[in-house]
Amino acid sequence: MKYPSHTELIAAHKKIQQYIHRTAVLTSSSSNILTKSDLYFKCENFQKMGAFKMRGAMHKILQLNPEERSKGVATHSSGNFAQALALSANILHIPAFIVMPENAPEVKKKAVAGYGGKIFECEPTLEAREKTAEQLIDKTSAVFCHPYNDIDVIMGNSSACLELFEDAGKLDAIIAPVGGGGLLSGTALMAKYLNPHCLVYGAEPMAADDAYRSLKAGKILPSINPNTVADGLKTSLGEITFPIIQDLVSEIIRVEEEEIIQSMIWIWERMKIIVEPSAAVSLAAVLKRKEFFRGKKTGLILSGGNIDMMNLPF
Amino acid sequence: MKYPSHTELIAAHKKIQQYIHRTAVLTSSSSNILTKSDLYFKCENFQKMGAFKMRGAMHKILQLNPEERSKGVATHSSGNFAQALALSANILHIPAFIVMPENAPEVKKKAVAGYGGKIFECEPTLEAREKTAEQLIDKTSAVFCHPYNDIDVIMGNSSACLELFEDAGKLDAIIAPVGGGGLLSGTALMAKYLNPHCLVYGAEPMAADDAYRSLKAGKILPSINPNTVADGLKTSLGEITFPIIQDLVSEIIRVEEEEIIQSMIWIWERMKIIVEPSAAVSLAAVLKRKEFFRGKKTGLILSGGNIDMMNLPF
Repeated sequence: MKYPSHTELIAAHKKIQQYIHRTAVLTSSSSNILTKSDLYFKCENFQKMGAFKMRGAMHKILQLNPEERSKGVATHSSGNFAQALALSANILHIPAFIVMPENAPEVKKKAVAGYGGKIFECEPTLEAREKTAEQLIDKTSAVFCHPYNDIDVIMGNSSACLELFEDAGKLDAIIAPVGGGGLLSGTALMAKYLNPHCLVYGAEPMAADDAYRSLKAGKILPSINPNTVADGLKTSLGEITFPIIQDLVSEIIRVEEEEIIQSMIWIWERMKIIVEPSAAVSLAAVLKRKEFFRGKKTGLILSGGNIDMMNLPF
Repeated sequence: MKYPSHTELIAAHKKIQQYIHRTAVLTSSSSNILTKSDLYFKCENFQKMGAFKMRGAMHKILQLNPEERSKGVATHSSGNFAQALALSANILHIPAFIVMPENAPEVKKKAVAGYGGKIFECEPTLEAREKTAEQLIDKTSAVFCHPYNDIDVIMGNSSACLELFEDAGKLDAIIAPVGGGGLLSGTALMAKYLNPHCLVYGAEPMAADDAYRSLKAGKILPSINPNTVADGLKTSLGEITFPIIQDLVSEIIRVEEEEIIQSMIWIWERMKIIVEPSAAVSLAAVLKRKEFFRGKKTGLILSGGNIDMMNLPF
């Protein structure tokens, strides 16, 4: 695959800029003392709808032509991408059709509906989700948007890394959580343009370590029914994200559930910001490889901050 | 009492500036939609040690002469002021003696000790605390520092309001939580210099409404063993804070426990920042007086973010 050029990635950022927040980059003396390194946290928990997914969803829709847009967009997801697509579509005044499993948490359905998404419930299996989405697209001619395995989505996601470099300066290393790989592949593409020597790492729950295993095997090995507190990272790499990660990412660092939860609590307590477990995986990975990151200027992408306060994992 | 002049308050800010964080001022479209007003949140939860108390404690110590400083400082407190005094003393390389009730939460003792404070435990009564502090001061000649009823502490606290005006522009109204009144009186003094038409409000738990009752009665009526989730606001006005508040504050708005908790959860969920219950009281008060604040450019001081994650009130 031919990767998007630096210029194309910059253009993607420019395109979405007016629709997204330029999120803060935080530093924290406690985290530098804890890790003995120089950390820069890109706070996508402060992004619109609470996660980086807004960047990719918005860029995807902006790439559609007026006729495509008029038909609307569709996806099946119960996570942050559903909210991101609904909100992006809403901002651009086009319809969003969201297929969600009937057992999805009420709080997630409410969020999607709150952003103006039209929800279609289905049985909680991947087949039912795909079939319902297909029927919906047949009927509406809406454009299907994949949450991560789509180069336009990846290009949108890459903008978080660009802003992080702009605010923090040249980084030695950057680390992002990896589920389907949409954030990590976008981050890697952008980081390598900005500093070819920047090392790019993925952070993954041990309990959903398909990226680690896939890189090792040299082919996609999906996670089967993974169970992790980092619910945003249960998805597996796709045919578009996998080769980019294989090519540009140095290592996938795996962490245990308890390490994720402790890192999340640490960020809440010390940095006074809410991040979701999937975001805390980045810090957990830096702590796991403390010796390696020691003294390095490292960027961490805090991918999101959507967590059900009434159902905390601690 | 002659109030400190505008110039003196500016000088206090200048003095402490290099030792404290200039905390962010956040806006949030959700909170503006919720309240139908234009809110600016001064994030003292991001302050060193996690609360505005750092400002007053640092200013107090900086007012001491070298001989006084060499003897150290002392206070009795189990709250944020103990941590603030310990950290300020640590930064200035002088000793801090902190009297704490023996039943104070471990997490608070650990925090004070972590900032280098020397802890002296006593029985959990005000008498025991005062007596232990007295004995300690007799022995060490340390300077006693009151958490709020001290004009140097109040002057330090006023700097949060100055930064808020600098970042947000001229405010129509400003609101701060009130316990002992150290933050509210400092805020009122500064706000009136910066905009004589700025209305200043105090936000207080109904369950610890001594400021409300004192203003009504025209004399200090302390709260007797108040019980509120806003543990930073259990203290009562002092002879220095009371007249300032009486003179410059328009109204004390009282809120119920449930309103405090719901406001705190709202800030966590929507703004993705950790604030303690005492800080959330400000938003609860704006919501209580929605009609009044509608359309007004209002500053809220989020006083702190120290909360025991293992003992959440929801």
